Amino acid sequence: MSVITIERKVLEKNDELARQNRTLFASRNIFSINIVSSPGAGKTSLVEKTLEQLKGKLNVAVVEGDVQTDFDAQRVAKYGVPVVQIVTNGGCHLEAKLVQDALQNLDLTNIQLLVIENVGNLVCPANYDLGEEMKVVVASTTEGDDKPLKYPGMFRNASVLIINKTDLLPYLPCKIDELKRNALSINPSLIIFETSCTTGYGVAEWCTWLTGKVFQHKGTK
Amino acid sequence: MSVITIERKVLEKNDELARQNRTLFASRNIFSINIVSSPGAGKTSLVEKTLEQLKGKLNVAVVEGDVQTDFDAQRVAKYGVPVVQIVTNGGCHLEAKLVQDALQNLDLTNIQLLVIENVGNLVCPANYDLGEEMKVVVASTTEGDDKPLKYPGMFRNASVLIINKTDLLPYLPCKIDELKRNALSINPSLIIFETSCTTGYGVAEWCTWLTGKVFQHKGTK
Repeated sequence: MSVITIERKVLEKNDELARQNRTLFASRNIFSINIVSSPGAGKTSLVEKTLEQLKGKLNVAVVEGDVQTDFDAQRVAKYGVPVVQIVTNGGCHLEAKLVQDALQNLDLTNIQLLVIENVGNLVCPANYDLGEEMKVVVASTTEGDDKPLKYPGMFRNASVLIINKTDLLPYLPCKIDELKRNALSINPSLIIFETSCTTGYGVAEWCTWLTGKVFQHKGTK
Repeated sequence: MSVITIERKVLEKNDELARQNRTLFASRNIFSINIVSSPGAGKTSLVEKTLEQLKGKLNVAVVEGDVQTDFDAQRVAKYGVPVVQIVTNGGCHLEAKLVQDALQNLDLTNIQLLVIENVGNLVCPANYDLGEEMKVVVASTTEGDDKPLKYPGMFRNASVLIINKTDLLPYLPCKIDELKRNALSINPSLIIFETSCTTGYGVAEWCTWLTGKVFQHKGTK
């Protein structure tokens, strides 16, 4: 029982820090998203394609989270946007405090969209609010169509599902309609996009929608 | 600091229960493996192909771990082997206690090999000993060749690496030699197999090696 109590305290403390992050984002009119997925589903490729598409349209900053290495920050830095790498050093998810610390090292002047890429893990990041406006879960077609049922927490807490690697569908047993049906059975309000970050398929639709959200959000401030 | 202390206590308690499991396996001459990977890398498909191959050669029992659903136990049950499903209900890894409880529901008479399939998570299961003889990490080619460097804990604690979905290599940027090099840079003693559970490629080599291990293990008792 004591462990459960500690866990609750950890989450309460995290929620308080997430609220502080949220207040900071609101004060600066920044729209923020928290991208989550299994390892290798294509989060960083999606960030790269999104940066390409939004270049000259939106000012974006990126926070990268990984257990080890700064490979992802290096990939993103090539797009000329402010980026900070968080290395969790074994930690299985980002927490609001880590994001808060990372923000100290980011110049947020004129930033309109903050993209936080979480650690590759379809379980633990679901419960940790970072102060983001919405969680975006990326599911790769290669993982099969049953993942929303097997890892429901993440799909329940996300606002958007991006089904990535659609170019591989001809070679896979994955049924995309079944994947969507399973995801919507867990969370009927999920907004779904299909993409291939290899061919670029679907990226424009996602970016148009995201840009709309960013401006709609600014309009409400 | 208090959280770190609690975490250490949790791990100490787990290690004690893992020792009990290990003693049970030794007393019954059972060789046990703990299969770990990201969600959708092909753990259950590997278990299915392994059961097909070992039919009539080894007596196998299976413990399935999932956050939700008993889909995997249903798939495995078709092969006519004893199987129990553990549903962690949000938990991100199996623990020795869960396996101990599951074993109460398995008839271990004459079992020579126990296969434990962990929750799909490339981070958390690395630190939880279940009492197994060895961890087998499955990496899918679709996840890219950098995963051993980004999730080193799992590759460090595993004895065997199975690179699965080799049939998809022609359609992927993944370089298999780079994947192997990265894995061996983290853990030079890793034994590596390449498989495609779709085509069956490489499964015989893995099963021959595994069978050898099971009999070698029995020989030492």
